[in-house]
Amino acid sequence: MRYGLVGAAGRMGGEIRKAFAAHDLVFTLDVDGETHTGTPQALVDFSLPAAFPSTIAAARRFACPLVIGTTGLSAEQLAEVRILGEQTAVVQSFNFATGVTLLKMMLREFAPFFADWDAEISETHHNKKKDAPSGTAILLREATGRDCPTHSLRMGGVPGDHTVFFANEGEVLSLTHRALSRSVFALGALKAAEFAVSAAPGFYTFEEVLSCGLKR
Amino acid sequence: MRYGLVGAAGRMGGEIRKAFAAHDLVFTLDVDGETHTGTPQALVDFSLPAAFPSTIAAARRFACPLVIGTTGLSAEQLAEVRILGEQTAVVQSFNFATGVTLLKMMLREFAPFFADWDAEISETHHNKKKDAPSGTAILLREATGRDCPTHSLRMGGVPGDHTVFFANEGEVLSLTHRALSRSVFALGALKAAEFAVSAAPGFYTFEEVLSCGLKR
Amino acid sequence: MRYGLVGAAGRMGGEIRKAFAAHDLVFTLDVDGETHTGTPQALVDFSLPAAFPSTIAAARRFACPLVIGTTGLSAEQLAEVRILGEQTAVVQSFNFATGVTLLKMMLREFAPFFADWDAEISETHHNKKKDAPSGTAILLREATGRDCPTHSLRMGGVPGDHTVFFANEGEVLSLTHRALSRSVFALGALKAAEFAVSAAPGFYTFEEVLSCGLKR
Amino acid sequence: MRYGLVGAAGRMGGEIRKAFAAHDLVFTLDVDGETHTGTPQALVDFSLPAAFPSTIAAARRFACPLVIGTTGLSAEQLAEVRILGEQTAVVQSFNFATGVTLLKMMLREFAPFFADWDAEISETHHNKKKDAPSGTAILLREATGRDCPTHSLRMGGVPGDHTVFFANEGEVLSLTHRALSRSVFALGALKAAEFAVSAAPGFYTFEEVLSCGLKR
Repeated sequence: MRYGLVGAAGRMGGEIRKAFAAHDLVFTLDVDGETHTGTPQALVDFSLPAAFPSTIAAARRFACPLVIGTTGLSAEQLAEVRILGEQTAVVQSFNFATGVTLLKMMLREFAPFFADWDAEISETHHNKKKDAPSGTAILLREATGRDCPTHSLRMGGVPGDHTVFFANEGEVLSLTHRALSRSVFALGALKAAEFAVSAAPGFYTFEEVLSCGLKR
Repeated sequence: MRYGLVGAAGRMGGEIRKAFAAHDLVFTLDVDGETHTGTPQALVDFSLPAAFPSTIAAARRFACPLVIGTTGLSAEQLAEVRILGEQTAVVQSFNFATGVTLLKMMLREFAPFFADWDAEISETHHNKKKDAPSGTAILLREATGRDCPTHSLRMGGVPGDHTVFFANEGEVLSLTHRALSRSVFALGALKAAEFAVSAAPGFYTFEEVLSCGLKR
Repeated sequence: MRYGLVGAAGRMGGEIRKAFAAHDLVFTLDVDGETHTGTPQALVDFSLPAAFPSTIAAARRFACPLVIGTTGLSAEQLAEVRILGEQTAVVQSFNFATGVTLLKMMLREFAPFFADWDAEISETHHNKKKDAPSGTAILLREATGRDCPTHSLRMGGVPGDHTVFFANEGEVLSLTHRALSRSVFALGALKAAEFAVSAAPGFYTFEEVLSCGLKR
Repeated sequence: MRYGLVGAAGRMGGEIRKAFAAHDLVFTLDVDGETHTGTPQALVDFSLPAAFPSTIAAARRFACPLVIGTTGLSAEQLAEVRILGEQTAVVQSFNFATGVTLLKMMLREFAPFFADWDAEISETHHNKKKDAPSGTAILLREATGRDCPTHSLRMGGVPGDHTVFFANEGEVLSLTHRALSRSVFALGALKAAEFAVSAAPGFYTFEEVLSCGLKR
């Protein structure tokens, strides 16, 4: 696959280049300008909202699919992403970790069975993380459809653990996701790009990428 | 609810009497004979295959629903249970723990998403347990549809823990069920009996009891 | 061993009678009065501070060792326990779970090695438990000599889990104690009574009972 | 600190250069030859036994402390390391992870208290790891002084988890070490080098480095 990358010089850009090592980077877009050695078959953006206008412009220029994991996009920007989806395949999500997405799907479907169980969430991240609870914990809590008490541990260099507990008088069921490294999101982006390259135009979530992967 | 109990004098019978404390025990059937002070609205049997003929006879006599968790029934006996289901509601399962049943349902539905992840199972039980892996581990392994390596720890008085792990290069997802006591199965039997009392004639698994509970 | 039991009719009294099943209960003391069929070789009290004067009087009357796990004793009452220790063996502790006591000893000795690691504590108990953090969590925190952030989960029927985490940039060490049932404390009381019966007069903690057990 | 590095071009060499980023690399020794821009105050070798003769020669040439974590050294080579320790500070160990070393120390000291508990070990590593059980599991098992059943899970990209369980009828105590990345050993090497630079001549284990760190 020939791919383009927005924010190629950033930390996440580095992770994506590593995950896409088997593919050709033919277009980069950074604060400093762009490089361009071919026409990308997919454009990937996990950078900042500030880059968004250039990203959309590039996707239109190349008429190529877009995988976008930028957080903090405004409602207007998200609307623009949807409009782009009328012409080409667009995959947008706030979390491209496969395991987190599957856990979210499980919770959404099975949480109703646990309506009369207690539920709590515990998450652990490295001590540099400022926000608590984590965005992922909030996303999982929403998937349970309940206001579970949520505990945030901040210690050492833990990349990110999340556990959702259900307990009743005689049983405890706990569902734990553990990220082993920060490469997780880049691997999800790769899966999304591979999907998008051959998908019909449309706006897709990462959940749909996973579900379609299953059907094929 | 007025209920009848086969094997009332056994260990599991004791657990069931405790779980059904809010209900009236009006009929018991044991090796020694029967006691009979009313007509049961549901009959419960978690005893041994030897009791099976008497159980079926009693269910027919009272024309009442049956909840049966006896393990080791023969194919002929299971066929007889199904025939009884044509006349009255029958709930039959080899595991009446709600959490185990839900975990099995989750695995059956979501395991395909983990086809390219590694999968292993680890289970821990008290040191008196002879068989390994546990029946529940086998049931969960079957639900994954894969031949996961399975590890059995036998130590102390652990009532029963089961974990199914999925891992890829960057993530680990682990689903753990932990029994807090042996009352778990009796609580499931209660849920099944409450269901059966008002259900249409038919043969039901414990999974169906849980799913119907959700729909109502 | 012939033993006496204060609060024999209470819940904890029941647990102790079960744990001491191989021994002879020859003296009981309750709100209703006492029963007395022999001279106890050890007296056990895990009841309430209100019983304390009668307990001390009985220990003096029989001139026998005392194992006391009552919580909420006043400084004066604790001083009286120490004075009794001048005449007979007395074992006093606020937690008679062997594993908790060993974990406390480990933490007290090894916590200094973790001075430059982050430390947090997480504990889980059944949803009937009112206080948070648990007394055991406080005791473990004190053993670390640090003011670790402490998280309390309250759910289902969990008898009691405690984890102390240490983490740095590259490693996490976690020490977890899990109570399987409420019999834990009664088994510790038994170990203490067996120790006290043949010990020299003195005031002993449960830690000393465990350490002496090792030396013999 | 000015340091020298054997096997600078290898994977572990890369980790060490990262961990020692605040220090000056003034000497490297590789299959291809050496680079030399200053006199090292400590020499670090986590490479292969084949490099051993050059390593010893370099340590003698610079009369500087040595930190050596090479596995697979012969008895003769280990004897040579000890002889070098008569002239300069030498730190030798087969595992430079601080947490593993502390866990080993805890087990060696406290395992006797668990003599009448069951004990088992479970370890998980990435699916590329060929040997089972891991060297660390063996080292921990030896520290318990018992022949604990040991379970090895091999899945995904897990850097390395080890749990030692002790369980009796009423309690489970589990001690878990989790490596977050492969940088763990390099950070231990740094700690050892910082120790060795100012230590008296002698042969030291990594345990002694940690214990001395505590005393200062």
